[in-house]
Amino acid sequence: MTDIALDMRHHKRSFAGYEPRHFLWSVSGDGKVGTITLNRPERKNPLTFDSYAELRDLFRGLCYASDIKAVVVTGAGGNYCSGGDVHEIIGPLTRMSMPELLDFTRMTGDLVKAMRACPQPVISAVDGICAGAGAMMALASDMRLGTAQAKTAFLFVRVGLAGADMGACSLLPRVIGQGRASELLYTGRSMSAEEGLQWGFFNALHPSEAVLAQAQALAAQLATGPTFAHGVTKKLLHQEWNMGLDEAIEAEAEAQALCMQTRDFRRAYEAFVAKTKPVFEGD
Amino acid sequence: MTDIALDMRHHKRSFAGYEPRHFLWSVSGDGKVGTITLNRPERKNPLTFDSYAELRDLFRGLCYASDIKAVVVTGAGGNYCSGGDVHEIIGPLTRMSMPELLDFTRMTGDLVKAMRACPQPVISAVDGICAGAGAMMALASDMRLGTAQAKTAFLFVRVGLAGADMGACSLLPRVIGQGRASELLYTGRSMSAEEGLQWGFFNALHPSEAVLAQAQALAAQLATGPTFAHGVTKKLLHQEWNMGLDEAIEAEAEAQALCMQTRDFRRAYEAFVAKTKPVFEGD
Amino acid sequence: MTDIALDMRHHKRSFAGYEPRHFLWSVSGDGKVGTITLNRPERKNPLTFDSYAELRDLFRGLCYASDIKAVVVTGAGGNYCSGGDVHEIIGPLTRMSMPELLDFTRMTGDLVKAMRACPQPVISAVDGICAGAGAMMALASDMRLGTAQAKTAFLFVRVGLAGADMGACSLLPRVIGQGRASELLYTGRSMSAEEGLQWGFFNALHPSEAVLAQAQALAAQLATGPTFAHGVTKKLLHQEWNMGLDEAIEAEAEAQALCMQTRDFRRAYEAFVAKTKPVFEGD
Repeated sequence: MTDIALDMRHHKRSFAGYEPRHFLWSVSGDGKVGTITLNRPERKNPLTFDSYAELRDLFRGLCYASDIKAVVVTGAGGNYCSGGDVHEIIGPLTRMSMPELLDFTRMTGDLVKAMRACPQPVISAVDGICAGAGAMMALASDMRLGTAQAKTAFLFVRVGLAGADMGACSLLPRVIGQGRASELLYTGRSMSAEEGLQWGFFNALHPSEAVLAQAQALAAQLATGPTFAHGVTKKLLHQEWNMGLDEAIEAEAEAQALCMQTRDFRRAYEAFVAKTKPVFEGD
Repeated sequence: MTDIALDMRHHKRSFAGYEPRHFLWSVSGDGKVGTITLNRPERKNPLTFDSYAELRDLFRGLCYASDIKAVVVTGAGGNYCSGGDVHEIIGPLTRMSMPELLDFTRMTGDLVKAMRACPQPVISAVDGICAGAGAMMALASDMRLGTAQAKTAFLFVRVGLAGADMGACSLLPRVIGQGRASELLYTGRSMSAEEGLQWGFFNALHPSEAVLAQAQALAAQLATGPTFAHGVTKKLLHQEWNMGLDEAIEAEAEAQALCMQTRDFRRAYEAFVAKTKPVFEGD
Repeated sequence: MTDIALDMRHHKRSFAGYEPRHFLWSVSGDGKVGTITLNRPERKNPLTFDSYAELRDLFRGLCYASDIKAVVVTGAGGNYCSGGDVHEIIGPLTRMSMPELLDFTRMTGDLVKAMRACPQPVISAVDGICAGAGAMMALASDMRLGTAQAKTAFLFVRVGLAGADMGACSLLPRVIGQGRASELLYTGRSMSAEEGLQWGFFNALHPSEAVLAQAQALAAQLATGPTFAHGVTKKLLHQEWNMGLDEAIEAEAEAQALCMQTRDFRRAYEAFVAKTKPVFEGD
């Protein structure tokens, strides 16, 4: 048992020195917050085959992070992400066979799956253009902070495709409602920042110069919280997606009983009794 | 194979000359937009056994339409639809046996199923009274444009029935949220146009004299888009209703790979490269 | 058959004289509306092991009530409920074994299950603090009336636990949307009354001195309606939680056909023909 436990532990690794090739990575918040910056600002930070795959691998790897407790996603130069690059992605796709196409659409879907499967809450800081696969990365985040300039467009339809991309038809109606989601997916039109706030897509709007810092501050706040419990919250929000309410309640009874045996729960109680502020350690 | 393909194609038919008996039908938008007008304005356009059945049959038939790419539903004379006619429907229902009642409730439900199953986006233009089964037709549409005078009431409870009618308990919470839907279904009260806009029931409000034209313009815009892809979007919005998110993402990976082999996808790419506007043809 | 029918009927009982030990119970609305008042105002009405269990048992019992047709939940002294008592609940929980913990989390979940399973619509009147398990009781209600002072917090995270408690990860996204729910569950922050209204958590806001009377008036209105049909609406809102839309439509076809054989449906029709107001009796 001990050997297995140690072995499991050995799979854990630090992401402090992680060096991606196709985007930027920085660590803040006492080493607990990782920030992904999409960084091709001259093209409004499009995604390429390589950056999709590397993002997917990073989020998959974060399941085993020993240090990172919350993740921020943003873009360089006043835009979030313009989606799949027309020349580097859409061109090649028009020449692919069906198995190759499915490889691609599964890879992009795997990015969303990985964002939802890692235990860290993911917060997107969205300024400027947030389009296509970029809009999906924002949507796949747990929370979204925007700016007044944010323009979010699920514009797959504009390149002749379905609005059904990377889980959009499942995720978007849950966030903004079925009627509004239908309009955005059928027309591909931009959702303004104000609409996004009113409809519950954005949790808040901030000035452009502040939005990243606000997202990192929120991430740092969560990262100093009961992070094991956050992981359970995230997992249950995912698992209960299509459970009946009674089954969801049982799932939460089991999950919460588990959290009640963490040291963080005891720390909170002891701090309350001592009239101090609890210091959570995520175990 | 060819024979079967031809046979399938033979099932396709034009709805340009379609002549319904219990409502009006007109075609606009270069022959691609069909408009259904409920037309008993002196009674605020109630539904009857006959009009229910004919609407159901029309939407079922539209699965095989060779020409119609988007549908508008509206009512004549400043009202959308007052629901099931009290004299022609509710009276007879009070005298029916259980099998007959179930025949009726299944027929009304089949109308909603048919509206969701046809590949064309359905847009309702709602002015004035929109009540009972009429409210359900609006709700079963993909998008809804209203006017300041629109009064939408799921008033089944006022005739002694459950709010559970034609899928209301499933659809309405997804569009406006569980709490608001509960209130409307338990009380039968009217939702004002302003509430409908704020809650995401209406996509937009327009003046009475403009709402139908606006709905037809939106329908025409969609009808000149990648209509095969629109049908996929509609199907996936339906199929994913109670899928887990991971299963939904796989469903979209398969569906979108399929769309990537359409000519419309290539047309969009080629237009982008040529810096022109793509002309979609729905194949 | 008759014996069984009588036997079933014998399980029915009146709650007019019900005397709970851990909260207050009063009956109004012509004997049809029961009001639960959490009543430890000096501590903002926390829940204890005993009050949880007694509330669960009451809601389970209400399935067989012969008289009560709607339920109001409120708190004494300007607050709704502060959740699980830190000294009486959280302290003991830190010392329990896993089976004991699961007994507890299942009991709290059973309260929500019982609130959703009883046929009476449940309306919460929320003033002041509405926190933790208290917020869950409000959320498990069918409708919520609030005041400008209402502060609603799913603050499980603040005691080191997951936001996944009593079904929160399933219920809250359906009421206010996935993005807003995620923020409240991860951060534990208070939702203001104004946010609650705008997001669809509250159906309406009223002054503190009026909110209970308003909730009781709404309950009385429902209690004089077709209460058998209300029970069907509530059951279907629950059953359809994770059905496909087509299956939901069939479930409603069957349920509504059943309601069409009630006397209340006939009463509504006859009143309409006689141009009077129907008097519903719930059968």
